[in-house]
Amino acid sequence: MSEKPRDTALVVFTPSGKRGHFPLGTPLLQAARSLGVDVDSVCGGRAICGRCQVVVSEGEFAKHGIRSGADHVSGVTRAELRYAEKRGLAPGRRLSCQALLQGDVVVDVPPESQVHKQLVRKRPEVRDIALDPVTRLYYVEVEPPSMHRQSGDLERLYEALDRQWNLSELYTDLRTLQHLQKALREGDWKVTVAVYHGHIRSRNRIIAIWPGYHDKIYGVAFDIGSTTIAAHLCDLQTGDVIASAGLMNPQIRFGEDLMSRVSYVMLNPGGDREMTAAVREAVNALIGQVAAEARIDMNEIMEAVFVGNPIMHHLLLGIDPTELGGAPFALATSGSKTLWASEADLTMHPDARVYVLPCIAGHVGADAAAVILSEGPHLQDENWLIVDVGTNAEIILGNRHRLLACSSPTGPAFEGAQITSGQRAAPGAIERVRIDRETLAPRYRIIGSDLWSDEDGFEEAAARTGVTGICGSGIIEAVAEMFLAGIINSDGMIDGAMADRSPFVQADGRTFSYVLRTGEPEIRITQTDVRQIQLAKAALYAGARLLMDRLGLETVDRITLAGAFGSHIDVTYAMVLGMIPDCPLEKVSSAGNAAGTGARIALLNNRARREIEQVVQRIEKIETAVEPRFQEHFVAAMALPHKTAPYTNLARAITLPAPGTRGGERGGHQERRRRRRGARV
Amino acid sequence: MSEKPRDTALVVFTPSGKRGHFPLGTPLLQAARSLGVDVDSVCGGRAICGRCQVVVSEGEFAKHGIRSGADHVSGVTRAELRYAEKRGLAPGRRLSCQALLQGDVVVDVPPESQVHKQLVRKRPEVRDIALDPVTRLYYVEVEPPSMHRQSGDLERLYEALDRQWNLSELYTDLRTLQHLQKALREGDWKVTVAVYHGHIRSRNRIIAIWPGYHDKIYGVAFDIGSTTIAAHLCDLQTGDVIASAGLMNPQIRFGEDLMSRVSYVMLNPGGDREMTAAVREAVNALIGQVAAEARIDMNEIMEAVFVGNPIMHHLLLGIDPTELGGAPFALATSGSKTLWASEADLTMHPDARVYVLPCIAGHVGADAAAVILSEGPHLQDENWLIVDVGTNAEIILGNRHRLLACSSPTGPAFEGAQITSGQRAAPGAIERVRIDRETLAPRYRIIGSDLWSDEDGFEEAAARTGVTGICGSGIIEAVAEMFLAGIINSDGMIDGAMADRSPFVQADGRTFSYVLRTGEPEIRITQTDVRQIQLAKAALYAGARLLMDRLGLETVDRITLAGAFGSHIDVTYAMVLGMIPDCPLEKVSSAGNAAGTGARIALLNNRARREIEQVVQRIEKIETAVEPRFQEHFVAAMALPHKTAPYTNLARAITLPAPGTRGGERGGHQERRRRRRGARV
Repeated sequence: MSEKPRDTALVVFTPSGKRGHFPLGTPLLQAARSLGVDVDSVCGGRAICGRCQVVVSEGEFAKHGIRSGADHVSGVTRAELRYAEKRGLAPGRRLSCQALLQGDVVVDVPPESQVHKQLVRKRPEVRDIALDPVTRLYYVEVEPPSMHRQSGDLERLYEALDRQWNLSELYTDLRTLQHLQKALREGDWKVTVAVYHGHIRSRNRIIAIWPGYHDKIYGVAFDIGSTTIAAHLCDLQTGDVIASAGLMNPQIRFGEDLMSRVSYVMLNPGGDREMTAAVREAVNALIGQVAAEARIDMNEIMEAVFVGNPIMHHLLLGIDPTELGGAPFALATSGSKTLWASEADLTMHPDARVYVLPCIAGHVGADAAAVILSEGPHLQDENWLIVDVGTNAEIILGNRHRLLACSSPTGPAFEGAQITSGQRAAPGAIERVRIDRETLAPRYRIIGSDLWSDEDGFEEAAARTGVTGICGSGIIEAVAEMFLAGIINSDGMIDGAMADRSPFVQADGRTFSYVLRTGEPEIRITQTDVRQIQLAKAALYAGARLLMDRLGLETVDRITLAGAFGSHIDVTYAMVLGMIPDCPLEKVSSAGNAAGTGARIALLNNRARREIEQVVQRIEKIETAVEPRFQEHFVAAMALPHKTAPYTNLARAITLPAPGTRGGERGGHQERRRRRRGARV
Repeated sequence: MSEKPRDTALVVFTPSGKRGHFPLGTPLLQAARSLGVDVDSVCGGRAICGRCQVVVSEGEFAKHGIRSGADHVSGVTRAELRYAEKRGLAPGRRLSCQALLQGDVVVDVPPESQVHKQLVRKRPEVRDIALDPVTRLYYVEVEPPSMHRQSGDLERLYEALDRQWNLSELYTDLRTLQHLQKALREGDWKVTVAVYHGHIRSRNRIIAIWPGYHDKIYGVAFDIGSTTIAAHLCDLQTGDVIASAGLMNPQIRFGEDLMSRVSYVMLNPGGDREMTAAVREAVNALIGQVAAEARIDMNEIMEAVFVGNPIMHHLLLGIDPTELGGAPFALATSGSKTLWASEADLTMHPDARVYVLPCIAGHVGADAAAVILSEGPHLQDENWLIVDVGTNAEIILGNRHRLLACSSPTGPAFEGAQITSGQRAAPGAIERVRIDRETLAPRYRIIGSDLWSDEDGFEEAAARTGVTGICGSGIIEAVAEMFLAGIINSDGMIDGAMADRSPFVQADGRTFSYVLRTGEPEIRITQTDVRQIQLAKAALYAGARLLMDRLGLETVDRITLAGAFGSHIDVTYAMVLGMIPDCPLEKVSSAGNAAGTGARIALLNNRARREIEQVVQRIEKIETAVEPRFQEHFVAAMALPHKTAPYTNLARAITLPAPGTRGGERGGHQERRRRRRGARV
């Protein structure tokens, strides 16, 4: 270090490592900006927003050849004190817009001061996402008009945004223009604008204006399912989910499943408009709920993102879904769609931008696109199979080089429908089943209780809800356990000889049933139920297999089960049944509500929108209905299990718990945790 | 010419002179396109639209070294015959999409077959405008969906537009997307789309779709005046005006002039919304009128362009005009604005694009911008003064290098208001005045009759309307003639001594009046009236003079008077009064409804929109109220005339007609012609 007085000093920013020399007196924020260091600011250096906080490191930094210290920047300013009083400032923190360079310093930018802060996700196998908001707030001071300089208020606002924020090529929504003059004067020529950074980053559109300083801006991510609609309200400046809510899809009154809703439209002219109105009404109810829960003004919601299957996607947008009801299942569009909230009659800020993710194919929706965005199969090298099971299974397979998608007609058996004692996953439904290999006696657990049916207190606990039926995960475990116990053979036939050995196997007309529970209601698994599960799992397997054929694969490297079903079933049993192809068991996992996560990613990250649009375009779409090999695979996959090798391995993998203990169930604990975290989703 | 058989031939297109060799069998349309020859086509070469007609020239073309003849192209096709039967095809005309090259040819492209056909204007001093429509129709055949190729209908439409029309970077309005699937199927995968070629030419937005072939598309140009609103319905494919209509501005019920309307808003909260609703209602009434007159479907109106003064501009857009009511007269925006018809509640196609020209300054509106677009002062070298007189005079001065604008507070005297016997220009109003230099006896003419008051049959003709008052052009001629006859001196005082010489000069309290007509009502010009005209003309002159000062000019090279007032007054009298600066008389002319013409140009020519936006930005805006020299000029300009030289010249220029003849009035004939052409505008 030189002894003679200098007029510049070295600044090193951590963690980026970016460094440069600046004149003494330069605000740290300005130094950061000229170096391209990511430091947030809404107020533009006026000590109002407090987003530009940094820590000046203390000590010798041999690596940089400097000694750094708090005394190498100017003292705390009055503006900073005002901020600290009003909103608090942690010890050691400085507002980088106020701290002026006085000597060499190492300056740490904490994560929360970064615009593109990482949104850390809880599952280690998926990537984190950086916050990269599409709509941002900018506080700006506008030159007042004068008789000597005739120009429009809007044009002076543009000039100020260009000068103070380096934003050019600006456009403005008409509604904002209508409020502009009043806001400027109410705010004494200081306003905050929300700028939507549309498709092309350089195209900037002012979509809202507030007088003075304003720092609240929110977005909502929606997952429109056929059965339920879920909403997550996010703070667009932190990325945090601040409220969530869910509702039954009111379209159910027009038809329980998707095809019956399309039929409703075909039979009732204008039926699509009724259903569009119904889903938008539900969305608005959810907006009201989350806004009330978070105590925010609905007018501060400036963004919404929607995902859903193709029929939900079309109905939300006001597009008649009739074409999706029959071959060739033509989508109106397979592109993403951006619209104003007012165009979809949504009760948020009328100029809020609504982004709808692209559908992939006639049966593979924007929800599947969102699953891809959440999981990122297109970013890695393994052959990754992702399955989202509903009435149809949406199946994705591939890696960074190729990505394939198809939909397979599993039918509703996996959701507990069309099963003798079947029901939706709800308190009272049997969700776990074990069968004693000797006595063939069943043990089970119901949703709403942690106790197995042979544990003390089970009946008391079950009395609250009753034992009402068996849900999707329950029926899968029941069939798999029946198979492992030898009650059904690999053709899926219930072995009548077992009826002699155990009272739980009973004749049932010409075939046999397995009785899980006697009493009212009696819960049994019939031969037909086993067939339904065989058909469903064969369809699922055949779809996956078809995609594997295309890639020339015999096994896959990784399997992820997405959606509510995926998070409830025990993947081991899914493999026992041959629902999914061969894969190392430790590489099979559940992604939970990946579609909802994908919607949230698209809400918070602009680049993610471009990413999924590009990925969807290059996905190879396979239509199972016209692939002859699908039928072959389907027929071959009816057997239980279709191969010996995985069966043997898997049978070993299943550790039967000792009666009365709760250990050993991979699925059970995970699922309880998940249900507690996001019960309404 | 070679004797051996060739496989290519030479095509020369006239009038462009573009030429090239093409393989035999090439359709002429295709040859034209590859050479960049401007040949229209909506159907894309399917012999449906008939827009690509050409004439194959006959004979030796020494210049090109070829012999051309109809037999050098293939014979008339069945499709061509079908077209000729249905829609007619003039002799010698071929559809260039059907005629295939068989030998060397010279092919003439008639003007109506060009997309960018010239819109020839009647005034020789202004440029013609080429048609360059912002919204165009494209007929396209779309690949149907198939199970083997999963893609959205919209994406297949995009592909077809790219392949068949070379249109890429396409976007689509939501409403079009909602109608897309039905239109495609109704049209058996043949549709016509309207594509809006927005701001940047390469950004193409589908804003409407029709099943099959559709070739009707219209636009409306609106001029929103404080008093009247005028609409011109144009065929966007030919540029022709096919219907015009005008209405009184219903905002008059809120206030006669602009300032009283702004006061209404200030005094009545929500008053701006009432006035916005009123003007939009009138616009919709006009749309209904012109659509009915032209027998077209309002849904085929895909464009609208608006011009108007700043207050009308703001109210149309739903912007509170309060700020325009007081210094510093801040515009909400001085930029152009594009919106959906639905955003302004206009009853045309809801996705029609509405383009509003930019205002120039707080007192210089989009109407003045339209005048500039019509006249083109920014395209030439002369120092051109353009004046649009209303309650304020909007004054423009400059050339291709510099352009200045200001507004000058002339008051309403030029419109006949605040004048003793004044009235609006309407049948029965005196519009021309001559005073006998000896007897001081008046002769005059009224609107609605071609006879002078001393001609036989005048009283009979006048009996139809009565002689009801004197309008703006009449009062100007009256004051100028009074001055030329020596009744008023250069200070504007009516010379009482004249009362002794002539019964037409009479004492009137402390001052004197000139009696134009006795009877009921008596029509006289009072001393106060002369003062009003002096004030108005001084304001007008001072504004012009201020701009001249800025450019260092003593005289201007050319003067154009725009607007209704400009087309009614005799420019010679305007110079006698010293309303306008010195300029060779033959370079002073009237532009008629230049604002309306400018609106029509913006409607029909995309580049014109960019042009005026750029010009408006670089106009130097002068605010007369803060320029001390304005007051000086104003005071100096009160005299009649302010200088001797032009007075002498001009007095000679005025040829008094012999009694009973109709010759010699420059203004009169022009004005009658104009009134007949566009009576309601």
